[in-house]
Amino acid sequence: MAEPSSTTQELPERPKGEEEGEKGEGEKGPSKGALKKAAKEKEKAEKAAKRKAEEAAQKAASEASDVSKADYGDLPMIGSHPYVPNADSATRIQLASLAQEEGDISGKEVTFRAIVENARNQAAKLSFVVFRQGISTIQGVVAASETLSRQMVKFAGGIPAESVVLVHAVVEKPKEAVKSTTIQHLEVHVKQLFVIAKADAQLPMQVEDAERPLPGEGEEQTENEGRPIVTLNTRLNNRVIDLRGKHNHAIFTIKDGVTLLFQEFLRTRGFLNTNTPCLLGAPSEGGANVFEVTYFASRAFLAQSPQLYKQMLIAARFERVMEVGPIFRAENSNTARHLTEFTGLDLEMAFEEDYHEVVSLLEELMLYIFTGLRERYKLETDLVRSIYHVEDFKLPAAGSVPRLTFPEGIAMLRADGVEIGDFDDLSTPDEKHLGRLVLEKYGSDFYVLDQYPLAIRPFYTMPSSATQAAYNPSSPNAGYSNSYDFFMRGQEIMSGAQRIHDAGFLEKRMREHVTPVDPNSDGLRDYVNAFRYGCPPHAGGGIGLERIVMLWLGLPNVRLASLFPRDPGRLVP
Amino acid sequence: MAEPSSTTQELPERPKGEEEGEKGEGEKGPSKGALKKAAKEKEKAEKAAKRKAEEAAQKAASEASDVSKADYGDLPMIGSHPYVPNADSATRIQLASLAQEEGDISGKEVTFRAIVENARNQAAKLSFVVFRQGISTIQGVVAASETLSRQMVKFAGGIPAESVVLVHAVVEKPKEAVKSTTIQHLEVHVKQLFVIAKADAQLPMQVEDAERPLPGEGEEQTENEGRPIVTLNTRLNNRVIDLRGKHNHAIFTIKDGVTLLFQEFLRTRGFLNTNTPCLLGAPSEGGANVFEVTYFASRAFLAQSPQLYKQMLIAARFERVMEVGPIFRAENSNTARHLTEFTGLDLEMAFEEDYHEVVSLLEELMLYIFTGLRERYKLETDLVRSIYHVEDFKLPAAGSVPRLTFPEGIAMLRADGVEIGDFDDLSTPDEKHLGRLVLEKYGSDFYVLDQYPLAIRPFYTMPSSATQAAYNPSSPNAGYSNSYDFFMRGQEIMSGAQRIHDAGFLEKRMREHVTPVDPNSDGLRDYVNAFRYGCPPHAGGGIGLERIVMLWLGLPNVRLASLFPRDPGRLVP
Repeated sequence: MAEPSSTTQELPERPKGEEEGEKGEGEKGPSKGALKKAAKEKEKAEKAAKRKAEEAAQKAASEASDVSKADYGDLPMIGSHPYVPNADSATRIQLASLAQEEGDISGKEVTFRAIVENARNQAAKLSFVVFRQGISTIQGVVAASETLSRQMVKFAGGIPAESVVLVHAVVEKPKEAVKSTTIQHLEVHVKQLFVIAKADAQLPMQVEDAERPLPGEGEEQTENEGRPIVTLNTRLNNRVIDLRGKHNHAIFTIKDGVTLLFQEFLRTRGFLNTNTPCLLGAPSEGGANVFEVTYFASRAFLAQSPQLYKQMLIAARFERVMEVGPIFRAENSNTARHLTEFTGLDLEMAFEEDYHEVVSLLEELMLYIFTGLRERYKLETDLVRSIYHVEDFKLPAAGSVPRLTFPEGIAMLRADGVEIGDFDDLSTPDEKHLGRLVLEKYGSDFYVLDQYPLAIRPFYTMPSSATQAAYNPSSPNAGYSNSYDFFMRGQEIMSGAQRIHDAGFLEKRMREHVTPVDPNSDGLRDYVNAFRYGCPPHAGGGIGLERIVMLWLGLPNVRLASLFPRDPGRLVP
Repeated sequence: MAEPSSTTQELPERPKGEEEGEKGEGEKGPSKGALKKAAKEKEKAEKAAKRKAEEAAQKAASEASDVSKADYGDLPMIGSHPYVPNADSATRIQLASLAQEEGDISGKEVTFRAIVENARNQAAKLSFVVFRQGISTIQGVVAASETLSRQMVKFAGGIPAESVVLVHAVVEKPKEAVKSTTIQHLEVHVKQLFVIAKADAQLPMQVEDAERPLPGEGEEQTENEGRPIVTLNTRLNNRVIDLRGKHNHAIFTIKDGVTLLFQEFLRTRGFLNTNTPCLLGAPSEGGANVFEVTYFASRAFLAQSPQLYKQMLIAARFERVMEVGPIFRAENSNTARHLTEFTGLDLEMAFEEDYHEVVSLLEELMLYIFTGLRERYKLETDLVRSIYHVEDFKLPAAGSVPRLTFPEGIAMLRADGVEIGDFDDLSTPDEKHLGRLVLEKYGSDFYVLDQYPLAIRPFYTMPSSATQAAYNPSSPNAGYSNSYDFFMRGQEIMSGAQRIHDAGFLEKRMREHVTPVDPNSDGLRDYVNAFRYGCPPHAGGGIGLERIVMLWLGLPNVRLASLFPRDPGRLVP
C-alpha cells in the first residue's frame, strides 16, 4: 500500500506579467535598461531560491514533528489501489442516511467522501470544514490535540472550496444546533482528512451564486439581497459549476422523473419503446427549419420529429409506440421558450372508432405525470420553487380535464375582448390569455384545445369532416381537423392529431396543403407508400420534455431545463 | 350514424402503356395509323362504358337482393364517428386473450379489429379468411345462409391480404384443429365484416418472405425450402412490410426489453437518466469520423458519444448518470457490424477506491439484462431463434463473470498458436478466437477483458500506473490502462475505462497521446476546465444497444436490430 503524500499538488503557475512585458524590447541586443532589469531578476531569483530552501527545511522539520503526518494530505491519483487505512469503500456512508439514524450515535466512527463547501481556520488549534454530499451538508471540526497536529488543522482550514475529500471522523452532538448546515443535530470530529481532487482556489463563479433566481422574462434585476445576479450567459458558460447548485440537481431529477413517468404509464398501456433515425435522406416535413448534414459524398438532414417514422411503425403493425429522443429545429428564434435541440416524448397509437380515444389516453398520461411529480418529487419541486417563486400547479378534478373545441376557445377570447378570426392561429399572448380564462372558469392550469383549423396544421393531419376518400367542404366542421394542443399555464406542451391513413387521400392533401409537398419526393415516397399496405386509423402526439419541466416549476427560461442548452447562438459547453 | 358503403374503394389506375405509346408520334397532324388507332380506341371505350353500365346494373340488382347489405363493405374513413353497430370500441377483444379463455366459449359473440393474413373463396357459398393480431392468427369462416348473402361471401374472399378489417363474429369449435393458424382450437364464424383500410392487391414483397432467415455472414443462400430468399436490401427498401414479420416484432420487443432492463437496474443503483446534446460546437474526440452540420451561419458536429458530457456531469456532482440516445459515427465501414447511427446505452459513475467497483457494477448490470431477457422475453427469443438458428447464450455461474487481463488474453491466444505482440490491438478474428477459448475454458459467452494497452485507448483513459501527477513508466503495469471491453460471443459490446479526473494530468496526456489533441481547442476547453473545479475519480462505459440484440439472438447482421438502419449507403426509408 502506498503512503499518502502530505505535500499539496502544485499546479503550474504562469509568471505574472513579466514574460509579456519583455516581449518586443531589445531588437538588436540588450539595452542598458534591459541589463539592469536582468540583474534585478537575478537577484530576485536568488532570493526566491533561498526562501524556497528555507521553507523546505521548515517543512521537513515540521513534518518530522508532525504526529498526524499519516492522517492528512493529498492522495495520489486514485486508480486501482486503496491508499487509506480504515477507508474501505464498502463501509463508506452517506450523510443523508446518517442524518436519519435514530438514537444517540455519538462516538460512532464514520468514513465518507464529500465535497468541501467551505473551510476556514478559526484559530491555530481549530478549523471548521463544511462537508457536502448531494443536498446534505454537515459541519466538520478539526481540533488540535495530542493525536492531531496543528499542521493538520492548518491544512484542513486551507482546503479550497469545491475540493473532493475523504473524511474519517467521529460523530458528535454539537453543543447547539448548527445553523449553517442542512444536518443541524450532528457534527463530525475529523480524525483523518485527505484531498482526493483539489479545486482551483479561484473559480469562475460561485455555486451559491448559481442558487439565486434568474430574473423572469421581461423582469430586470441586477442584485438580490445585496449579492450580484450572475447572468444566464455566465451561468451557461460555466455550466459545470452552475449545475452543482442544489436547485439544478432538483430540476434534473424532476426531468428524469417526467421521462420515467411517461414510460411507466405507457408501458402499462402496451406501448413499445422505439428508436427511429435522426439522420434522414431528405427533409420530410416541408423542408423549412431543418439542419443539413454532410453525409460522406452526399448530404443528410436531421429529423425535426419522429413523426413520419412512428406512423410507419403503426403501418408496420406496431399498434402502440413511444420514443424518447432528441429533436432538432433549425429555427432562428432567440426566445425564452425555444431551443434548437430538445428532448421529445413522442407516441402514436392505432385507435378503434374515434380519435378521442387517443385524446383521453393522452389526458390520462399527463395527469399521471403531474400526480407522480406531486407525490414522488415533492422535495425537489419545493426546493426549486423556493427559488423561483411560482403558484402551485392546479390540476383539474380527476377525470375532468377541460377539453374545449377551437371555436369554443375563440368564443371565450372574444367574450373577453380579443379580436380574432374564426380560423386564425392563436398567438402566444392569445394562448396565455386563454389559459388564464380557462383557469378562472375551470380551476385548472392544464387543458386541451381540440379541433384546430385544418389550414394551420401539417399536411398529414386528418380533416375533421373526412370520409372515405374526400372530405365534405359543406360539412358544419369543414375547415377544422382532428387535431389538438395540450396546454400548461397557457403554454403549449404537446401538439397532436389523427393522421391520414389512406395513401390516396394523403397524396391529395399533400398537394392541396397551404404549403404543398410532393408525395413522390425522396423524403416522402416511402412514407406515402406505407399507407398503401393497409394501415389502421391512428393518432398521437409529441411532448416537449423541457417545456413540461419549465412550466411545472415555473422556470423563467427553457434553457434552465436543459443540461447543456443549444440555441442559435450557443453550442458550448 | 353514417351507413357503411358497400362498394369497394377504387384506387385511380393508370392506363397501361397506351399513353406512353402515343407520345412522340404525329408531329404535324395525325397519321393514318394514328387515325386507325383512334377509331379502335373509341370502339374500345364504348365497349368499356357498356360493360361498366351492365356491371353497375348487375350490382344494383345484386345489392337490392342482398340481405347482408348492411353487414359488410368498406368503411368510410374513420375519424370521430362510430359507423358500425355492435362494434363499440370498448368491448373489442384481443385474439390472444380469447385463446386463453377457459371452458367452452362456443357461441360467444365477439368484435375485433384485425389484419387479413389471407382470404380465399372456397366455393360460392364459403370463404375462409385468416385474421391476425400481433403474433396470433385465427381462422374466419364466411358461410352463406339465410341471413348471409353470397355477395358477402364473395366480398370476404376477395379482400386483399394485409388489409385492416373490423370483424363481428361468433366463436365456434372447429371440427378438427386448424393447422395453419396459431389459435387452433377455435375459429370464428363471421356475421359482419368491414374493411377499415384496404391494402394494395400487389405488395412489393410478402410478409411471409420476410419471415425466413437471411444468410449469415459469408454464407450463400438463394432459396430456402423452395421459396426465394428476399435479400436484405429488398427487405430494408420495403421495411414497413418487412417489419410486419412476427420475428421482427419479437426483435424490437427484445430491444425495448434491453433498454428497460438497463434503466431499471441502474435506477435501483441511484443513476439519474440524462439528456446531453448531440449538436457540438467542435469535434471533441479527435476529429475523425464526425459528421458536420450546417448550423445557421456557422457549423456544428454530431456527437460520437456522450463521453465528454457525462464526465462533465460527474464534475457537476451528479454521482451516477446514464443516458440512452443516438450515437453518430461517420465511419465508412460497410460491414455486418457497423451502423452510422445507433443507440448508445451510456453510464458514468464516481467510485471510491478502485475502478473495479465500476467493472463489478457493469458485470452485474449485464447479468441483470441477460437474466431478464431469459425470464421475461423467452417467447420472443425462441421465436427469433426458430428462424436464426443459434446456440443458446451461455451465462457464467452467478457472481463469476470471467475477467481476464489483457496480458492473460494475449497469453491464451499465443498458447493456441496466434502470433501477436504484447501491446497489439486485437483484430476482429482475434476477438472471436479469444471468445471461443474463453467459452471452452469458462463455459461463458460473456466475459470481460481488463487493462488494455494505453496506446490504443482514447486520451481521457487513466493509465494503470498513474499516481498523483504522473505515471511511472518503470512500473510493472506501465503501458496498460484502467480500461476494459465487454464481450458477447467474442464480439465487443461495451468499451469503458476509468477517466482522468485531474486537469493538469489530462492536458499532459492529451498532448502525449498517439493522436494528440489540443486541450485549448474549442471542443475541449470547457471539458478540461471541468476538472479544475474538483472532480471525483470516475469510470463508465458505453454499450451498443443493437449489438447486444444482435449477439443475444445470433442475428447475422446488426441492421436487423435497427428499425430503420443507417449505413454509408442507406438513408431511406
